[in-house]
Amino acid sequence: MTDENYMQTALQLATQAKGQTSPNPAVGCVIVKHNRIVGLGTHLRAGEAHAEIHALHMAGHDAEQATVYVTLEPCQHQGRTGACVDALLQAQVKRVVVATLDANPLVAGSGVKKLRDNGIEVIVGVCEREAQQINEAFFHYITTKMPFVTLKQAISLDGKISANKGQQTAITGNIVQQDVHNARAEHDALLVGSQTILTDNPLLTNRLSANKKQPIRIVIDRQGLLPQHVNVIKDTTVPTWLFTTKSYSFTAHHVRVFLANNWSLEDVLTTIAQAGIMTLYVEGGQQIATSFIQQQLVQRYVLYIAPLLLGTGAVSMAATTTHNQLRIKETATLGNDIKITMEVDTCSQGSLKN
Amino acid sequence: MTDENYMQTALQLATQAKGQTSPNPAVGCVIVKHNRIVGLGTHLRAGEAHAEIHALHMAGHDAEQATVYVTLEPCQHQGRTGACVDALLQAQVKRVVVATLDANPLVAGSGVKKLRDNGIEVIVGVCEREAQQINEAFFHYITTKMPFVTLKQAISLDGKISANKGQQTAITGNIVQQDVHNARAEHDALLVGSQTILTDNPLLTNRLSANKKQPIRIVIDRQGLLPQHVNVIKDTTVPTWLFTTKSYSFTAHHVRVFLANNWSLEDVLTTIAQAGIMTLYVEGGQQIATSFIQQQLVQRYVLYIAPLLLGTGAVSMAATTTHNQLRIKETATLGNDIKITMEVDTCSQGSLKN
Repeated sequence: MTDENYMQTALQLATQAKGQTSPNPAVGCVIVKHNRIVGLGTHLRAGEAHAEIHALHMAGHDAEQATVYVTLEPCQHQGRTGACVDALLQAQVKRVVVATLDANPLVAGSGVKKLRDNGIEVIVGVCEREAQQINEAFFHYITTKMPFVTLKQAISLDGKISANKGQQTAITGNIVQQDVHNARAEHDALLVGSQTILTDNPLLTNRLSANKKQPIRIVIDRQGLLPQHVNVIKDTTVPTWLFTTKSYSFTAHHVRVFLANNWSLEDVLTTIAQAGIMTLYVEGGQQIATSFIQQQLVQRYVLYIAPLLLGTGAVSMAATTTHNQLRIKETATLGNDIKITMEVDTCSQGSLKN
Repeated sequence: MTDENYMQTALQLATQAKGQTSPNPAVGCVIVKHNRIVGLGTHLRAGEAHAEIHALHMAGHDAEQATVYVTLEPCQHQGRTGACVDALLQAQVKRVVVATLDANPLVAGSGVKKLRDNGIEVIVGVCEREAQQINEAFFHYITTKMPFVTLKQAISLDGKISANKGQQTAITGNIVQQDVHNARAEHDALLVGSQTILTDNPLLTNRLSANKKQPIRIVIDRQGLLPQHVNVIKDTTVPTWLFTTKSYSFTAHHVRVFLANNWSLEDVLTTIAQAGIMTLYVEGGQQIATSFIQQQLVQRYVLYIAPLLLGTGAVSMAATTTHNQLRIKETATLGNDIKITMEVDTCSQGSLKN
């Protein structure tokens, strides 16, 4: 078995926890001694033990003189849990293989340095790209202090989102709806514009996914247009955050109002990132999609395309242009609809890959 | 081995010749005696021997008391080659298994009847759907006396075909271009509107496919706008057919002018079908695509989608609507573009499947 083989196992462990560790990264760890796995660990949830700690616990005395494979550089700062570097030193491991350095450029390499300074052999960069992919949202969040944004739209072949302005049009089918609810469950928050609430009055909850996680509902309602009787206000089961420049006449315990003289999209994203939102799912109507794209605030673009034409009089998905920024990552057929997942080349993403 | 197994082999033989037998169907034949294949045949080209004749020839005396698997009902009319039914009777085969009856409803079943009347056991319907799929263009052509029409467009995510009216925009990449040339090679003719010629001045030849077949170039130019210096007139290597209501000042040996007081699309299709065009590849601009879709003259719709937005000011792919008519058949990623192949539910197609 090579270093790559063991690291693949560690990556699989990390993948298991993907989406449930926010705002922490998903990390996997494998400890090997005499070609035998003696410890396995996954970081399962923010506030709980890191992957290395779980694996060291499982290995017990076998950790001594063992090789440790970990998908992310071990931390050397005292966080909510003890520093992993110290635990590794204490366990007297012989060798540490790291897939990728810490996402935070300010501390990247410091964990590796401390291990090396203490005479431990450290190798960095085994399966680096895969390790970064698993935590791309986390890496983006740490380096930009903004949420990793997925923009989602459901469109016709001719790029329309509804037949008429102000009127809801069901375009895609049931399997797409299921897929959207799965995506909601994988995000910390979802965001829409007030226009979507006024037109469709959606609940914006996850009702169809096996994963029962509910994202926070965020509405950009600069003019304070939302009336009290809409579903995101009436339904109290999930928090709703409103970004507005006008105050509301109503209050509710699940509603949090962010009031300012002005809300640029960037301000909104910075604010919610500070509030712990690492992944944001934007369910964009024309205006919101246009703004996010124009301001280059999208990292991933997911389109569900239904095989029909709505015609030139219908509402376009976006009123903007893009060039050479989108890369197709995946396509899938969902019932009689198509799902296209694209990555967006932005500066922040570019820096991730350097 | 079951009847289905042998018929699958016959279908594979038919598939080999798909696209090169026009205006005849692609047919495969397998002759089996004592669980051993003694003859194989494929109809390779119009005017040459039918699949059964090739297979009987290979089987020789072994055909006696054998079972014959054929993907299409054997013909009993004396065409350019002898009637296959007579050849089967003469060879004294014991049993004939047919995938699907003749496409022509006027003679469908007559070949089977004559075999049965002469004491041969006949089974019909083994792998029927696949056999009809292989020859869907032929079936359509025979039953409707119209070409099987594939509409192709290259669009942006927001359903635009060019950034500005009257200006060519390169949207999709090289692999799509290769795929389009392959598709040209598989069709008897391609069709564009005069607007495409005046805007893009394309050669409309197949220059990239390993299959060197060149489709006839058809231009609908009702107002007689085409000048002599455009590529489809200057290039004399491939026939160009012009459908117009005005006469031209130029003549050329490769140009055939179809002049009438009026040319509806249906008239054009009927005329070219009579001239032997079984499969038509429509490379649609907005106007041509809109007309073909509105008049329900499309059987297959192929879209190449490039991952970019051209914006609300750009030229739409079509100025019409469709509902519940398109069924996704296949999706593929070609470089950084996507190909979607859709079937269109039309009355003529519906009758094929009854």
